[in-house]
Amino acid sequence: MSVLVVGSIALDDIKTQTAEQKNLLGGSASYGAVAASFYGPVRLVGVVGEDFPKEHRELFLKRQIDTEGLEIVSGGKTFRWSGEYEENMNNRRTLSIALNVFEKFQPKLPAAWKQSEYILLGNIAPSLQLQVLKQVEKPKFIVADTMDLWINLAKPDLLELLKKVDMLILNDSEAKLLTGEGNLIRAGHAIQKLGVPNVIVKKGEHGAILFGAKGEFFSTSAFPLEEIYDPTGAGDCFAGAFTGALAQSGDLSFAGLRKAVIQGTLVASFNVEQFSLRRLETLTCEEIAARGKKLLEILSLA
Amino acid sequence: MSVLVVGSIALDDIKTQTAEQKNLLGGSASYGAVAASFYGPVRLVGVVGEDFPKEHRELFLKRQIDTEGLEIVSGGKTFRWSGEYEENMNNRRTLSIALNVFEKFQPKLPAAWKQSEYILLGNIAPSLQLQVLKQVEKPKFIVADTMDLWINLAKPDLLELLKKVDMLILNDSEAKLLTGEGNLIRAGHAIQKLGVPNVIVKKGEHGAILFGAKGEFFSTSAFPLEEIYDPTGAGDCFAGAFTGALAQSGDLSFAGLRKAVIQGTLVASFNVEQFSLRRLETLTCEEIAARGKKLLEILSLA
Repeated sequence: MSVLVVGSIALDDIKTQTAEQKNLLGGSASYGAVAASFYGPVRLVGVVGEDFPKEHRELFLKRQIDTEGLEIVSGGKTFRWSGEYEENMNNRRTLSIALNVFEKFQPKLPAAWKQSEYILLGNIAPSLQLQVLKQVEKPKFIVADTMDLWINLAKPDLLELLKKVDMLILNDSEAKLLTGEGNLIRAGHAIQKLGVPNVIVKKGEHGAILFGAKGEFFSTSAFPLEEIYDPTGAGDCFAGAFTGALAQSGDLSFAGLRKAVIQGTLVASFNVEQFSLRRLETLTCEEIAARGKKLLEILSLA
Repeated sequence: MSVLVVGSIALDDIKTQTAEQKNLLGGSASYGAVAASFYGPVRLVGVVGEDFPKEHRELFLKRQIDTEGLEIVSGGKTFRWSGEYEENMNNRRTLSIALNVFEKFQPKLPAAWKQSEYILLGNIAPSLQLQVLKQVEKPKFIVADTMDLWINLAKPDLLELLKKVDMLILNDSEAKLLTGEGNLIRAGHAIQKLGVPNVIVKKGEHGAILFGAKGEFFSTSAFPLEEIYDPTGAGDCFAGAFTGALAQSGDLSFAGLRKAVIQGTLVASFNVEQFSLRRLETLTCEEIAARGKKLLEILSLA
């Protein structure tokens, strides 16, 4: 089953303590769509300017992502983000943002895509996420990602969105910020009370926890890595692989969600091994499966 | 098989954001011994003053802990610690310390205890932990706990100790401090290179990771709790239950260590539910088993 992915598409300049790279492919939709593409067909909705490099577009094609919903604004410039990571890569500073064509972005679904069943609302303004929802007709499972910026600046829209989606994915500090709860378990339950039946709280190197609609609970560790080159987009990859795996299996039971969390964990762990989407550019399903086997061994209690 | 537990025995005054309690039973050996006692016989080595309350001593007896190695200094006062937790309970401040009889403590093993096979060197000065090791004759498995204080003040002793024990247990910030590594996986491996074959890095609410002597790796989440009343001694309980479970099973394979980590996780999760050792005072093996079943469900990938 196809996954519809909407979100930002960006050109990123990224600086870590050891390296610096410019004009990288970035944005929540780019990461989400490529990650989802390992599990089945993907439809990408987003906007870029005329300056969007051919090589980035080719990555979408190589991953067989349908770009019919990718709007190219003639004469426009692509959204740009520039950030710097501290030695502790959980801390990053945004150095600059230029919204460019993203400023007036109004997501429009091609007519044939309105029947999409699995929807990933990547991290963009909740008002835009809501606009997408108005256009889909019979969704089976809607996943929304968000970030601290929207919790601070657009909370009413976000709260409206939460009543209309099946799953919210956010990180631990965002879960605390959204609910005012210092304890993550209480924060997860408090988010469910806002109207969204399922919640995933991502904890970076500490893994992720899944709160199910019927009070179920699942907790997993991350895949252990000795080196992290670029954490940008790891959360978007998690969401993309999660939604892709769910669309592939069609299993919306708690066991199905649990398995999709493991796929999110795996693809995110590959993504941080190189800058931007470069690791995912060469990644194969066989590599994901092999690392999945290793992760199961690491988590095994037998 | 008996577990020999050595460490501090203290009277704690503890303040959290919601409550304050005085003259509580505390100290690494108290927590470690009581936690280990759910898995088999325990021998306690420590020192207290004449002021040590009868009710605290009765808890040791109730848990059938052999106190032949518990020295009572006549006219002496028991070691006292006072601390305060911030709202984020990972942060605590020591308000005062009075070493009292602990200042001149020289652990002495009763003759019959020199044959002890399973040894927990609870968190005390590494020089005292080394003194205990000199007195044991044919240990099968030695677990050492430590803390940032000793890494900062007694690193040479600690490094000597690491060459003589089978397992070091420490928390994530201590693992980074000891090795200078910012990444926990690299930190764990770096500690193994210091001479200790097995390492457990505790991550509080995020669980624990186990590094095995042959390069094996195990990672588990903690048991999810909505409320934490008093985190004091959780790490000591983890170490006590871990060593106790190991002595009970006698299984020193990696699978055996893994199972013991789960027991450490469980008993630590109970301990934080009330002040001091009060939850463990009423805890039963049936309750541990029931929570163990729940934890396995939460971690289950099937």
